[in-house]
Order: sequence, then C-alpha cells, then structure tokens
Amino acid sequence: MEGISLEELQLAARNHGMPLEALRYPVTPIGLHYLLIHYDVPAVDPEAWRLTVRGERELVLSLDDLRARPAAEVTVTMECAGNGRARLDPRPVSQPWLLEAVGTARWRGTPLRPLLEEAGVRSGAVEVLCTGLDRGVEGGEPEQAFRRSVPLDEALRDETLLAYEMNGEPLPPQHGFPLRLVVPGWYGMTNVKWLERIELVDTPFAGYQNAWSYRLRQAEDEEGVPLNRMQPRSLLAPPGVPEFMTRERMVAAGEVLLEGRAWSGLAPVESVEVSTDGGETWSTAELESDGEPWAWRGWSYRWDAQPGEHVLCCRARDAAGNEQPREPAWNLGGYANNAVQTVPATVT
Amino acid sequence: MEGISLEELQLAARNHGMPLEALRYPVTPIGLHYLLIHYDVPAVDPEAWRLTVRGERELVLSLDDLRARPAAEVTVTMECAGNGRARLDPRPVSQPWLLEAVGTARWRGTPLRPLLEEAGVRSGAVEVLCTGLDRGVEGGEPEQAFRRSVPLDEALRDETLLAYEMNGEPLPPQHGFPLRLVVPGWYGMTNVKWLERIELVDTPFAGYQNAWSYRLRQAEDEEGVPLNRMQPRSLLAPPGVPEFMTRERMVAAGEVLLEGRAWSGLAPVESVEVSTDGGETWSTAELESDGEPWAWRGWSYRWDAQPGEHVLCCRARDAAGNEQPREPAWNLGGYANNAVQTVPATVT
Repeated sequence: MEGISLEELQLAARNHGMPLEALRYPVTPIGLHYLLIHYDVPAVDPEAWRLTVRGERELVLSLDDLRARPAAEVTVTMECAGNGRARLDPRPVSQPWLLEAVGTARWRGTPLRPLLEEAGVRSGAVEVLCTGLDRGVEGGEPEQAFRRSVPLDEALRDETLLAYEMNGEPLPPQHGFPLRLVVPGWYGMTNVKWLERIELVDTPFAGYQNAWSYRLRQAEDEEGVPLNRMQPRSLLAPPGVPEFMTRERMVAAGEVLLEGRAWSGLAPVESVEVSTDGGETWSTAELESDGEPWAWRGWSYRWDAQPGEHVLCCRARDAAGNEQPREPAWNLGGYANNAVQTVPATVT
Repeated sequence: MEGISLEELQLAARNHGMPLEALRYPVTPIGLHYLLIHYDVPAVDPEAWRLTVRGERELVLSLDDLRARPAAEVTVTMECAGNGRARLDPRPVSQPWLLEAVGTARWRGTPLRPLLEEAGVRSGAVEVLCTGLDRGVEGGEPEQAFRRSVPLDEALRDETLLAYEMNGEPLPPQHGFPLRLVVPGWYGMTNVKWLERIELVDTPFAGYQNAWSYRLRQAEDEEGVPLNRMQPRSLLAPPGVPEFMTRERMVAAGEVLLEGRAWSGLAPVESVEVSTDGGETWSTAELESDGEPWAWRGWSYRWDAQPGEHVLCCRARDAAGNEQPREPAWNLGGYANNAVQTVPATVT
C-alpha cells in the first residue's frame, strides 16, 4: 500500500469506524457506530430549528411537531459506501476506510410518507431532495450544503423515517441532531443528517453528491451508475487478543467460537461461509434467526484451532444471489468494495 | 510527511479524535470524546464483574457495592499523551494523532481514597497498581493485561475517582464499562479502563506501560522520564466552512468570533493568545470564567477578517509559567507534542 497522506489522515482522525470487536453488539452502542461527516457537525438550536417540507404545499414543522406525529422504530445496519476504499490499488483518495465503516442502530422517528402526502405529491414528482445544515466546499464547486436526493419510491417506503432518536436517546450531534433521514438498506450517504429541507422535485437532482459523487465508474468522463443499496458483506470479530500495532491475533489452541455479522441491502442474507485457511476451503456458519429485516444477521462457527498460522475469512451471500468477491472491483471513487475480509491469526 | 502505513491506519480507523468543531461543547458528547483502546474493548457481564482492592486486606466489590458508596462528580479534560505524534518528524510509529485526541466529560463515581484506606495503606506503599480487563501483546512482551501504576499521593487526591458514569450515563463500553480510574490532570493512559484489580505496591511497577511506554526519552537505551500531567494546549474551532478533502477553511470577510478551549494539567490556564498571521503577532483572547478546575477553559477573540490568506494560531500559558512552543520537541514515543496549532483560512 502506498502511504496514506496527511489529508487522508485528517479525515481518518475525525471520522471513525466501528472497532470490529463491537460486532458482539446486535445494536451498536453510541460512540462505536461508524461516522462520516463530510463538512462540520453543525450547531443547531432545537428551539429555533424548523423542517420545511415542500410538495404541492409547504409545511414547516418544529421538533415538537414531528414528535407529536405517529412514531415508528426500525433497526438498521448502515455502512459507508466507501467502506473498503483503502484496500483498493491504486487507492482512491478520500476517507481511507479499511473495513470498519458500519454500525447498527435503533432509529426512532416519524415515517416520511404521510408527511410527503400532506405536502402533496405532484404526479410529475420523481425524487425527494434532502438538504442538510452542514456546509462546505467539495470537488471544486462553490460552497454547498450537503444535499442528496432519493428516488420517490424509496422515499415512500413504509420503513423510510425521519429519525429523531438513536438507540432510545435524542440523536447525538454527530449523527444528525435534531433530525436525519433513514432509508433502510441504502449506503450511508443517502441517510441525510441535520435535515433542514425536504422537497419533491420533478427532475433528477443534478447536484454534486448525486451527479458526481457516489457513482460507480472507471473514469472521470464516464457518467457511471449511482450507488444505492449495500452490497452483501460479512465481518468476523477477530478472536483471541491483538498485538497492539499490527492488530494481528494471538489465539489459544482448542475450540474457538468464531462470531460475526452479515448484511445486504439488496436481499436477506441467506448464508455465511467461513474459511480458516485463507479461502482454500469453506464451511457453512450457523445463522441467527432473522428478526430485524434491515439489520445484520449474527452468525457463528466452531473452529478447532490447531497451533500454527491461519488466515480467517468469511463471506456472505444474499437471497438474490449476490455474493462477496475474493478480490475487489476497482472504481474511481473507491465505493462498494465488499471483498472478503482476511484475519491472520497465530494459534499457540 | 512520510506516508502513513497500513498499521498506523488500522489504529486511526478504530481510535478516533474529537472533530475540532466539537470544541463548541463545554462537555463533549459521548461519541465525540477521543478514544484510545490499546487492545480490544472487553466484553463485561456487570452482574458477574467484581473489583478487587488489595492493601493490607483484600476487598471484593460489586458494581452495586460501588454505587452504594459516597458519590462524587468531576468534569475533566483528558488528552492522549500521544496527541500531536503524527506532526513529529521523523514520525514515531504508533497511533497517528494529529491534534484531536482530547475530550471533556463529567465523570461520576466514588472517590478512591476511602476505598484504599479501608483496604489498609501500608506504610511502605508507594504506588497504586491498576489492572484492566483488556488484554493483548505489545512491545515484544507476552500477553499482558493493560496495567499502569499511579503514585500514591495522586491516588489519594480528593478528586481521584473510580468512575461508573460519563455525562450522566453508565460508562459506554469504549470508555471502560463498568469502571475506570479518573486522575484529573493526567494524560489519558493513567485513567485505566475496564478496571478489575487495584493494589497497593511497595516498589514502583516495572511493567511495560510504566517502565517502557509513556516515557519521554530520545533513544531506546535511555531510562527517560515518565509522563504524568498534561502540558498546556489551546485549540481553536476552525471558523467558516471546510473543504472536504483538505479541511482548509473558507471564511466570509468581516468580524469573525474565533473560539476555542485551553487546558493544562500542571496549573490553571492563565492566558490564551491568538495570531491571525501565522505567529508573527499575537493578541490576547478573552478567557471564560474558571468554574471547573480540571476542565478546559473557553476563550474567544474577535477577528476582523480581511480578504486573503491567513494562518490562525493560538497558544496557552498556565499559572506555573508553562507555555506552548512553536515547534515540537521530538521524542522517541512521540508524546506530549503541544506545539501551537496552525489553521490556514481563506477569507473572501
């Protein structure tokens, strides 16, 4: 790997992943869930804050207004579209994620659909454009708010929420206080934080975050394909204990319960396989019962660990037949690299 | 800067700093406070967990026992001893902190001193040795628990706590659940997390984290000087908006209120100065009233921002005469680099 630059390090120091031992929690504790903040966490006065929803009419809602509406809660696994970027070669220059840009939270809020219907969904509407309060400069464009659009059918799903709570508490500042969008199954960038405005639009949004960023393409002059739902991925909680600097694992010989979690935004996870020989041979892991449709599934595998060097791997396949590849497919933005995790372990 | 290695990046992806805009909060929200986890966050069953305190006698306490004891709360600014490491040249290889390894929390718990007195402080005791539940391999030594000792006089200070709450909530797993030591004014490594054992010892602890790590020295064969209290530092919340990748600031011309916070573990902060020309000239910032003796002090400075390129800096001096240097003093472990922060800003 070519050395990480100061600019990449600056991003890595502020945006953090989920330490992989936190895979033990079905719901990730606040502070362990991954974070990607494009610009700065904005300061928001919840008393003065209002959400504008614009359809055929314009609604203006306070946080109390939103809390007084019907509430719903959904447990969602959310992953950054750039997770795995730093494993690509050549490495696209942006937030240098390895594997940890994921987390699962209980998001509570009010469903978006009834609000859009109250505002009036014009027959020509194709997308819902969400604007956050976070502002910055990016990609050579002038100062912009973080803005992303969602296709109308995704915005109208029953489980698409405007969330004001995370894990039973008011949204922390870094997760979008006072309000964020949650579109279960999609990569993180669509779950716009610090919402200030939601509008139905008749033409696809052509702003930076949709038209330029978050697209799969090989070269800058390609239009590419927009990212949407999370590709399948499985991660294992590294067993034994780590060496501080290398994070390599030291494991005591004998029966070791390997545990991890797997998810896909495209379809339910159908199987997880484990390899303890670097991917030469694979065995089927046991899957936990599937209670939360938009959250990861736990899995486990009993490994008879014999002394020596081993490379642990896991791979998920979903019900639509999507499976993790051994090697990543390179793309310009370094997105959606769901190649199989490998964990070297020394058994003694 | 020479490129950051994969191993350094692995640490940066799991251990995170406080994004500097979070300097706006006098108490850092959970999830924005810096974290350094040497090994893994351990899994702890709070029902089964016990703390052993060994002096002339041995006490064994449950979490309920500790909560039933007299409680105290102290607001503490805590900084990693390695903060600033990645700005040193050559760069010591470890967690590559830039500037963000800091945070302030309200820690609530029970004072350590009465517990030590109940266990019996032998006349020959010189240190209190704290052992955490986190285990790993480090510095070529065999598997170890994270263990650090504190000088007896520091352990007996009124404000030294065994903390079970952070910001009014049970300790999050990543901050030491169910119990951690808090020694106000000291660098983070002394505030041992996931405590399992506390013992009075008659000879200075010669284990890895005291005798080898966390010492100021120029070469491996030097004994060096152990780190203890935080050197003075001031940080400013970068004004305006950032460019995503460079984090350089774009600021609108006119009056800009520069704000930040300053701390020192050695003595109260006495002054903060601000420069808007890269340190050529300095002006005095206004300090907030000093309510919490172990927490940072807020400061502000009204800047008449004129169009052009500027470099913003701030520096703190404490009542003992310690002042931040312009250039860092190199040392082998990359500790205690409290050189002045510089923030490039383009005013338009």
